[in-house]
Amino acid sequence: MRQIKLLLEYDGTAYMGWQRQLKREMTIQGILEDRIFRITGENAKIIGASRTDASVHAFGQVGTFRTSSKLRPEVIKRALNALLPQDIRVREASEVDHLFHPRHSARRKRYFYIIANLKETSVFLYKYAWLIPHPLDINAMGEAARALIGRHDFSSFRGTGSHVKNPVREVFSLGIERFDRIEFMTSSIKGEFLKIDIEADGFLRHMVRNIVGTIVEIGKGKMARRMEEVLESRDRKLAGPTAPPHGLFLEKIIY
Amino acid sequence: MRQIKLLLEYDGTAYMGWQRQLKREMTIQGILEDRIFRITGENAKIIGASRTDASVHAFGQVGTFRTSSKLRPEVIKRALNALLPQDIRVREASEVDHLFHPRHSARRKRYFYIIANLKETSVFLYKYAWLIPHPLDINAMGEAARALIGRHDFSSFRGTGSHVKNPVREVFSLGIERFDRIEFMTSSIKGEFLKIDIEADGFLRHMVRNIVGTIVEIGKGKMARRMEEVLESRDRKLAGPTAPPHGLFLEKIIY
Repeated sequence: MRQIKLLLEYDGTAYMGWQRQLKREMTIQGILEDRIFRITGENAKIIGASRTDASVHAFGQVGTFRTSSKLRPEVIKRALNALLPQDIRVREASEVDHLFHPRHSARRKRYFYIIANLKETSVFLYKYAWLIPHPLDINAMGEAARALIGRHDFSSFRGTGSHVKNPVREVFSLGIERFDRIEFMTSSIKGEFLKIDIEADGFLRHMVRNIVGTIVEIGKGKMARRMEEVLESRDRKLAGPTAPPHGLFLEKIIY
Repeated sequence: MRQIKLLLEYDGTAYMGWQRQLKREMTIQGILEDRIFRITGENAKIIGASRTDASVHAFGQVGTFRTSSKLRPEVIKRALNALLPQDIRVREASEVDHLFHPRHSARRKRYFYIIANLKETSVFLYKYAWLIPHPLDINAMGEAARALIGRHDFSSFRGTGSHVKNPVREVFSLGIERFDRIEFMTSSIKGEFLKIDIEADGFLRHMVRNIVGTIVEIGKGKMARRMEEVLESRDRKLAGPTAPPHGLFLEKIIY
């Protein structure tokens, strides 16, 4: 059996997330496994580097599957793209050795999150940015973000249903950038936009969305506690709400 | 009765175009008239500046309707946006006098068309650009475009089902710009992209899409005739195919 690695891009809007479900819901994994079956006749299981939630997007998800098919990776890529819906694309396919594991071999993962700090959003942006019509204190948000950089127990930002034993992760970078416009198909949509970039050696369930939700709550001036206290408490109830999924993009997995 | 003018933005992907149809299909006009009825209780007819086709997008469509409602335009805007689907937005609402007509009062209309000259497109672009995987001769396309600038009989680019008497229009500008990347939510998608901008005093049915289709055919080196001959022939059969609708954006109506 060979192991094939796929670099994947998807618009998460129409899907119930990465992970295949028992019910016949539309999931990225489920669709990919179905198309792999149509090509190879094998019931392959595809393992993803990140279990993205419903409506979360990806520029660079990584997935692997095993196959006894002799098809060249380039042919697998072309065959999959011919069968996949247009909002899921294989960017690259390659053969990797059996020691490679999309999650365990990953050294770093990068996500970004887009906030439209506007009264009203555009028809071209609403599926890709969290619309926040209230004023935000960007300096306070930046300070809160910096407090999370480093190696910490991130239990305060861990979603329910997470079963991993070790809640310690290292956040290498966490920054907030302001934009006074967003380009859409070469046209400028003016307004106040924020991009939150985060890179870590791994993430707990909902960790990015809970961090973004807490940073935004601080930006609104609604948090009684400072970010340091929230982090040290290891208490999910002290952090802010979970940011909506549709502003989140899985940018890259670094091996 | 007052006349209300709406400046509208929409993502045309989900719609059968601007114009209401006898069948209960999803159209921009039909949805707007339904929401106006819910707000005012009146069966208003909304007149649009441009009858955009299915899957065509708009940054700046203009529509008007008459109402005996006393609601301020700002309130109408807010009420419509609360009831409209998120892929149709009222950007501005204002009261205009009865002499104003969205089509007859328009002095100029601007459209642009996006081409992704790539082997494969991105999941974030496929609804907004025409994917052309063949090499294109941009210089030949630019030369062909320039031949159409000015006051001409555009019968060669007129779609079937057009009933207007006068096929003469004045094209003020028609240019092709190259991009080596397109920004999507602050991320660069690299590749060869073309933007075709066209401004005229009016357009015949399918005129922009037929012009774009002919320019592309010339770019592929597939046209036996030069653009000047196609224009002078006044024969639709000599022009190229109709470009697909989803790369087309109604940018602005100028009064």
